[in-house]
Amino acid sequence: MPSSIGPVKTQYLTLPEPLRLKSGETLPEVTVAYETYGRLDPAGGNAVLVCHALSGDAHAAGYHEGAVKPGWWEAMIGPGKGIDTDRYFVICSNVLGGCRGTIGPSSINPATGRPYGTDFPLVSIADMVEVQRRLLEALGIRQLHAVIGGSMGGMQALQWAVAYPERVRNVVAIATAYRHGPQQIAFHEAGRRAIIGDPDWQGGHYYDGPGPVRGLAVARMIGHITYLSEQGMREKFGREIRGRPTEKFGPAFAVETYLAHQGESFVRRFDANSYLYITKAIDTFDLTEETGSLEAALAAFKGRMLLVAFSSDWLYPPAGMKEIARAVRRNGGEVTYCELDSSYGHDAFLLKDDRLAAVVAGFLGQKNTEGADYPAS
Amino acid sequence: MPSSIGPVKTQYLTLPEPLRLKSGETLPEVTVAYETYGRLDPAGGNAVLVCHALSGDAHAAGYHEGAVKPGWWEAMIGPGKGIDTDRYFVICSNVLGGCRGTIGPSSINPATGRPYGTDFPLVSIADMVEVQRRLLEALGIRQLHAVIGGSMGGMQALQWAVAYPERVRNVVAIATAYRHGPQQIAFHEAGRRAIIGDPDWQGGHYYDGPGPVRGLAVARMIGHITYLSEQGMREKFGREIRGRPTEKFGPAFAVETYLAHQGESFVRRFDANSYLYITKAIDTFDLTEETGSLEAALAAFKGRMLLVAFSSDWLYPPAGMKEIARAVRRNGGEVTYCELDSSYGHDAFLLKDDRLAAVVAGFLGQKNTEGADYPAS
Repeated sequence: MPSSIGPVKTQYLTLPEPLRLKSGETLPEVTVAYETYGRLDPAGGNAVLVCHALSGDAHAAGYHEGAVKPGWWEAMIGPGKGIDTDRYFVICSNVLGGCRGTIGPSSINPATGRPYGTDFPLVSIADMVEVQRRLLEALGIRQLHAVIGGSMGGMQALQWAVAYPERVRNVVAIATAYRHGPQQIAFHEAGRRAIIGDPDWQGGHYYDGPGPVRGLAVARMIGHITYLSEQGMREKFGREIRGRPTEKFGPAFAVETYLAHQGESFVRRFDANSYLYITKAIDTFDLTEETGSLEAALAAFKGRMLLVAFSSDWLYPPAGMKEIARAVRRNGGEVTYCELDSSYGHDAFLLKDDRLAAVVAGFLGQKNTEGADYPAS
Repeated sequence: MPSSIGPVKTQYLTLPEPLRLKSGETLPEVTVAYETYGRLDPAGGNAVLVCHALSGDAHAAGYHEGAVKPGWWEAMIGPGKGIDTDRYFVICSNVLGGCRGTIGPSSINPATGRPYGTDFPLVSIADMVEVQRRLLEALGIRQLHAVIGGSMGGMQALQWAVAYPERVRNVVAIATAYRHGPQQIAFHEAGRRAIIGDPDWQGGHYYDGPGPVRGLAVARMIGHITYLSEQGMREKFGREIRGRPTEKFGPAFAVETYLAHQGESFVRRFDANSYLYITKAIDTFDLTEETGSLEAALAAFKGRMLLVAFSSDWLYPPAGMKEIARAVRRNGGEVTYCELDSSYGHDAFLLKDDRLAAVVAGFLGQKNTEGADYPAS
């Protein structure tokens, strides 16, 4: 029976070197928050990097001391689970630009002694991956058995295949896209405007005030609409009235009270500037940017790839995932495309789903088609 | 060749009686802004009521003095057009709760001498239709040849068939729904939160201040995303960079500068409280509310109905329109369902489209199946 990895702790590592970003700017000192589960085998061949999505963090599984809720991917990570911590050494780190232990706009700027705010440089998905690579190097891991992630985590997984093709044997990208189209950008942009338009944003230097909590809540509400499917919402909420608003325009429909709750709880745990930086990193991510095509971008990747899409995910629809699969196939690469039927929309990848666990476990445990392990570099 | 109706003027009428609303509250004095095009024939049988959508107004066609832009449905209304002003007497009025001449939250509350703000009572689609009926009565029109509208205008057209089935011979509902599902409510709610969360909203009593212009702009941006299709956005914007932001998070992608422009221009012409009241009227609209089914709701309607959907409209998808058509058919009613292929999404109904004009013109000009005009009441 799958169980929980149990008590875990977030660890912190400061990278030995300054980090030069894609933008050309340099961060002199980069601290990364990360967690690990399971044990690295003596040959160092069983490391699996898990990449989190927009609002995730390093706490992917198990329980922090005194906590009631487990990590964000408890459904997938643990002994006997989709990512089996009895077999694999799992690493998950908070992304660059985040607000959960890794350096980001809410961190102290050594030049001023105050939080960076919008003086923090713009970051990219490629920069996030570079930080992960350096973290792994510091942990003594030169090659990954697999990198795996959903949504923005899937973008990082794909970026690994492009940036460090020789360092990763298996790539698992779930419910993601190789770049944003204008509709996806538009939803993010509406959220960013809500934050920036909040007077408490204060140009991004709000850390001695309340911060743009109303704007961030609206941004989160917009996000949540795109994470659920139309059908899933109908099944979950219908036109049910759940709120008893004391004001004329207070939340009344069940879907309204749900969104209000999502907005309110998000602002307690997330930094509005991180929301701006990370959504911008997602919007500007384009796997084909330097090479002009998916095939060219992925040409150097000789590992295996698993792509999992959910039928009702309209934020990152199956069609875009299939494009990636076709590109790998045209390159002669080994790729599995799997579409899971679900009414849960984009959020499906975060929910307990035995099919997803089975597909991932099967993929991670397989040898490659030649029957041999991918040669270690 | 179709041409413009030319110069037009908005007119105003104060209803002779107070208006008791669905909520139970009463508005003592209701002024309605309206425009008319064409001539009412002596028998009064050629009147066509045009109902506008969320952000529309009474100015549906022709040009106001000195104006460069025509009315919002110039593409459809005029001599020789889809709604032919050489044949029909066309009336369009601003909805109750609006901000373009008809009484709404920005109107003066006679009890205080100041704008109502959120003291204005909640209004419904049924209330909007009741105001239209009274306006028509004041104009000497007891029966309509047709009522026609898209989006929220289509909801009003459907409501006419339910509330006053004997007063309308033909109903044309375009790109609309008989009620909102939770996803549609959710998009509206995110917009309402953006407005209400703006400190300049001031609890709805902002008329001596700047008003919640940033919140309203965000609400409009969210709306616009739902008015376009994903495919249409890709064709129109792609990932093109058009802005040259001076700030880190300024609009850069073409879709971002487009949304920024839409938001900015909207706040100059629309009242934020009207946005709250009208979106709430839409969200609470449910044609089946009193009877429990579409068939029962539409049972008394003996006229003809035309339903037009657009293939890429994901705000009001064809499936919902087909449900209405099936209900009319099950009632033994005469209904035409027409799905037009388009990549323009929900907004398609506002654009020049010869197919839409031809379908509407054909439907309005036809006799009923018995070959006789619908009997005047």
